[in-house]
Formats: sequence, C-alpha cells, structure tokens
Amino acid sequence: MSDATVFETTCPVPRVPGARVLLAHGGGGRLTQRLIEDVFLPAFGNPALLARHDGAVLDLPAAAPGSPRLAMSTDSYVVQPLFFPGGDIGRLAVFGTVNDLAMCGARPLWLSAGFILEEGLQLDDLHRVVDSMRAAAQVAGVLLVTGDTKVVDRGKGDGIFLNTAGIGVVEATEPLCPAAVRPGDRILLSGDVGRHGIAILAARESLGFESELESDCAPLSEPVLDLIREGVRVHCLRDLTRGGLGAALVEIAEASRLRLMLDERAVPVRSDVTAACEILGLDPLYVANEGRFVAFVDAEDAERALAILRRHVVSRNACRIGSVGEATDGLVTMQTRLGSTRVVDLPSGEQLPRIC
Amino acid sequence: MSDATVFETTCPVPRVPGARVLLAHGGGGRLTQRLIEDVFLPAFGNPALLARHDGAVLDLPAAAPGSPRLAMSTDSYVVQPLFFPGGDIGRLAVFGTVNDLAMCGARPLWLSAGFILEEGLQLDDLHRVVDSMRAAAQVAGVLLVTGDTKVVDRGKGDGIFLNTAGIGVVEATEPLCPAAVRPGDRILLSGDVGRHGIAILAARESLGFESELESDCAPLSEPVLDLIREGVRVHCLRDLTRGGLGAALVEIAEASRLRLMLDERAVPVRSDVTAACEILGLDPLYVANEGRFVAFVDAEDAERALAILRRHVVSRNACRIGSVGEATDGLVTMQTRLGSTRVVDLPSGEQLPRIC
Repeated sequence: MSDATVFETTCPVPRVPGARVLLAHGGGGRLTQRLIEDVFLPAFGNPALLARHDGAVLDLPAAAPGSPRLAMSTDSYVVQPLFFPGGDIGRLAVFGTVNDLAMCGARPLWLSAGFILEEGLQLDDLHRVVDSMRAAAQVAGVLLVTGDTKVVDRGKGDGIFLNTAGIGVVEATEPLCPAAVRPGDRILLSGDVGRHGIAILAARESLGFESELESDCAPLSEPVLDLIREGVRVHCLRDLTRGGLGAALVEIAEASRLRLMLDERAVPVRSDVTAACEILGLDPLYVANEGRFVAFVDAEDAERALAILRRHVVSRNACRIGSVGEATDGLVTMQTRLGSTRVVDLPSGEQLPRIC
Repeated sequence: MSDATVFETTCPVPRVPGARVLLAHGGGGRLTQRLIEDVFLPAFGNPALLARHDGAVLDLPAAAPGSPRLAMSTDSYVVQPLFFPGGDIGRLAVFGTVNDLAMCGARPLWLSAGFILEEGLQLDDLHRVVDSMRAAAQVAGVLLVTGDTKVVDRGKGDGIFLNTAGIGVVEATEPLCPAAVRPGDRILLSGDVGRHGIAILAARESLGFESELESDCAPLSEPVLDLIREGVRVHCLRDLTRGGLGAALVEIAEASRLRLMLDERAVPVRSDVTAACEILGLDPLYVANEGRFVAFVDAEDAERALAILRRHVVSRNACRIGSVGEATDGLVTMQTRLGSTRVVDLPSGEQLPRIC
C-alpha cells in the first residue's frame, strides 16, 4: 500500500483472536508494515500492488483503439453497521465505485482503497472487510492496485471508514449524461427498489426490527456493458444510491431540463419493503439501493434493452417505468397508484443517515 | 461530485457566517445538492466535474506515445489540526497524492476527492480547505475531476477527513522501484528534513510550543519530471512522509536487499528542528515531511541530477546523503556525527500520530 509496501513474508501471520488496531498501526513504522503484510497484501496481492511503489503503475489494455478515454470515480463509505444482511462496508465500497464507473459507460479496471481505522477496532473485523473486498473485486473483475491506511484515536472515528476510487476504460462511444436525454426516451429500471436502505435499518439493533430482507448490493457493469456492446442507444445511466430513485430522476430532469414522466405502478417494490416503509414513514422512492440503476434509452431500442438486462441475474426484473416528455420544465411527474399525478421533488434532508 | 452534480446557480451563494454542516448535507437530497453547488463546484468547476456524471470521463493527452502507462495512487488525510503553519489538510491532500504519482515517474493529471465531514463542522472551515485545494491543484497542474461527500454524526469523526486519489501518465521509461536500485547508486535528498512533523506539533495547542517553523508541504513533480526528461538514470524515488527519511530508506533497503550507507552529517536538518526534536525526544530521521524525497541515481549522473534539482525552489538544497553498497543484507547503516556507524531501523510504533 502507499508509503510502505514491503512484502517479505511468504506465509501470512495467523490471525490473533481479540487483536485490536493501535494508533501505532498508522504511524508508518514496523506496525504499519505488519498491518500491510498481514492484512492487505495477502488479500489483494497482485503485481501492481506488490511493486512497492507509492502508487500503482498500470498498463492500459492494448485492445483499446486509439487514445482511450478513462473514467474516474470515488466514494467514501461510512455505513453503520459495518456488517449487514447482504453485504458489508467492503463489498459496498467495491461495488459502489464499480457501479459509478459503469454509469459512465466504462469497464471498471482498477480500484484504490483508503482505510481510516478507529483505534481499538477488532483486527478480525478488518480481516472480514478485506476478505469481502477481495471476493467482491473478483466478482466485479477489478484489481485493487494501491491503498493507504490511517488510524485515528478512539472516539474520533467509527470503526472503519473506507474510500475507494476507480479507473475504467470508457466503452460507450457517445456521452452518457443528462444532456444526452431526448424527448421520447424510455426510462428503464433494473429491478425492485428500496431493499438496501431497509436492510441497513433492519440491521440497526436500536430499531428492533426483524426482516429477511437483504441489501441489493451488487455490481452493475455486466448488464450495462452488454447494452453498450449490443448497440442499444443508451443516453443516460444512473445508479440509485443515496436519495434513491426519486433523487436520481429529479437530478436528471433538472440537468436535462426535460419532463420525466413516471408511472408509480410500474416501479417494483417488494411487499416487505413496502410494509417496512409504511411502519417507518419512509417513501420507497427515496430509499437507497446499491445494485439498481435507471437507463434512458431510445424508444425504438427499449424492448431489446429490457431483453438484454433480463439476461443478467442482477437485472432480471428490469422494467419500463416511464418516459421522457416534450416539456422543458425539468420536472419529474408521477402518475400515482390512485391515478392522480404529482410532482416528485428531492427530499430536503436526510431520510436515512449513513446507509452507504 | 459523484451521485449528485446538478450545477444550476451561476453565482455562488454568499457564505453565511457561523453556518455548520448538518447530517442532512450527506443525505443525497436538496442539502447535498446545495453543498455541492455552493462549496465544491465554484472551487473546482471544470468540464469533467461539471458533466454531471457519477464519475469523470477523461481524455488521455494525445501526445502520449503508444499505449500509455498510468500511475494511480491514494491517501487519506486525518491531520490534526486542520490548519497549521505552512498548510492545511486540503493542501496536504492535493500535494500528497501528486507527490505519490511523481514518485512513480508520472505526470499527475487528475485527482478525486472524498470528504468525510463531521456534523457540526463550520462551513467556513470547509470553504477554507476547498479554496486551499483549488490553489494547490492549480500550482501542481492537476484537475480535481470527481468527488464525494459523506457526513457522520457528531463525535464519530473529527472535523474533516479527506481522501484523494490520483491518476498520472508515466513519463519514466524504466521502472522506478527498489528492485531497480544498483550497488554504487548515489542517494540524493531534496532538502532539509523534519519540518512538517515539527510544524504540526507546534500547532497543537496542548504542547504550548512556539516556533516560526512552517511545514515543507509542496509538490515535487516538477523536479522529478525534469530528472526524467533530462535523461538522468533514476532507479528509485520515494517521498518522505510518515516515518520520515529513516522509514523510507529502511523500506527500500529491505525491498532491494541491498546495503544503504548513509552519512548523518550530510542530512540537512534546520537548527530549530534539531532543537525541537531534542526537547521532544524525537529523532529527525523519523519525523514526517510533505515536500521532500530521496532519489537513487546512477553514480555517473549524480552531480548532474543535483544541478537539475537545485534549479527548483522546492529542491534547491538538494544534496547527496549516501550511496548503495555491495552487501546484500538489506540494512541501512549510518555513519553518525560522532564517527561511529549504526544500523538504522524502522520505529516500531508511532512517533507523531495524525501528522498527515
């Protein structure tokens, strides 16, 4: 990892039950080295990471035609609890950044990881998170090539904060952004919404809330890249994280200055999510997801796009939830289950703190 | 910034004295949007950031011959206090990652920024940090192209934690790494050591320590790229952050499995740093720097390399501090001021917590 990447041990040191992170693990000395050797390198070892640089040196894939375009993205993860049904902070941090790159029409290639550990963290929890990141990176086909660890004093952090940044090679030939959205475009949604946010809430002991629900946390690059490779005219992609489907659509409407028309009945929400939202006073439209996205596609390609999405497990319930109108007011309108039409706006504040 | 990048305001909203960060600023709704519009976009606005993607799409410079090699690096910054003589967490976060890329022989091009803010942070402090990042990015010739903001509850963070990741294009034609170090190589140091760590300590009120000292926090890419462009046979570069000169040399010795021979009298330390270290019981060899590096260069090129380094303000006091021996024991030995020779090892723990 950055600053100190000597990797001499050939067999990883056994995990010591009850061992905790010390401030000195962040000091740049022997203990920092041990943390890197015992925890990070055994999990992520690859030529770029093992090269003992301050950073990773990376060869772009030779197949990229001409001067390739890159995508870069970053997210910090502060989710509580660190482990929840269907995922954990490490899985979230890998798939979250992979998904942001996918939304740029890019094939994710490389990730960095920046850990901010709280003094006193159980080393075993760190191992679990790192193991989960390794598995997630393998699933998503990315390499974790550089990293950094800091330790903050007890009471100045919260277990683990984790930042990932990612690089991908853009495969989309046209820009994917709100400005590319056209009147008449169909709005496709990759699956049911609200599971991640509710799963996090259910995992918070203080709520005493029982549920079988698991987070939808998953990588989205394969279905997205299939859309692009098979020539679907995709105009804009957005994953539905903080703020949920509602926030994503409002942002795209405002940026494109077009009217988005949504059909509430077409938006899949599982009955247990609906029930939990009713109890908690939440609107599933604004509840966070970590494995869902919307695609704005040319009307003529919509059915073909749905067929492509449905080939992938993560988007097997993809459906059309609306279309783009002619009005240039930048509003999202929704035909409700009751048949009335209302304007969808951003929530002003915080529905669910620290869900990612 | 990632997740929500609508930029509609043409004039930034005036700063409100005493305004603070709320949990809702991290919720992905209107307040997140306001934070992005009022704080981040006015500071960093550039086409990649303003494109309203989940990530930035980046064109590699056309001049790069063949398939370019990239460098990627990341660091999280948790320094306390946030503002100190000669810098602040924002300046540190820009130059720190720029320097890690430079140490890979790369020209730094793009940065991401991930903010973890503590609820209750003065918004004005955030503005100051962001303004400082903008100025630093301009000095270092990099663009901040994507970002993310999270807010954690009061008492679960410490004002601002800041991660930057960076991408550069590698200009070095040979690998720069400990494995490339050769017996006979000269070890060059770009200037006096220990100022950053001591400046941070002096800024911590609890020490009640008065000093004129400023951090050496500075970008190192220009002198490094000049060495490469002018054909100096550079074998390894390392900036001297956590753990200082001592840790950097020990890591390179262990990784190269060669003996590094250091002359203590040749290592420049300012008299006020020496005095502070004596009072505090610190060894300047292990005190952190944020604008210093060592270069391992072919013996025949050492004088020319020093002349090139001395053309740059940041490395005008560059000097030769040692050389690489024939022994393959991976040790760092130092001829002390008293004429004796001792082995330099890594400190086991933490000399100065949270200096970067």
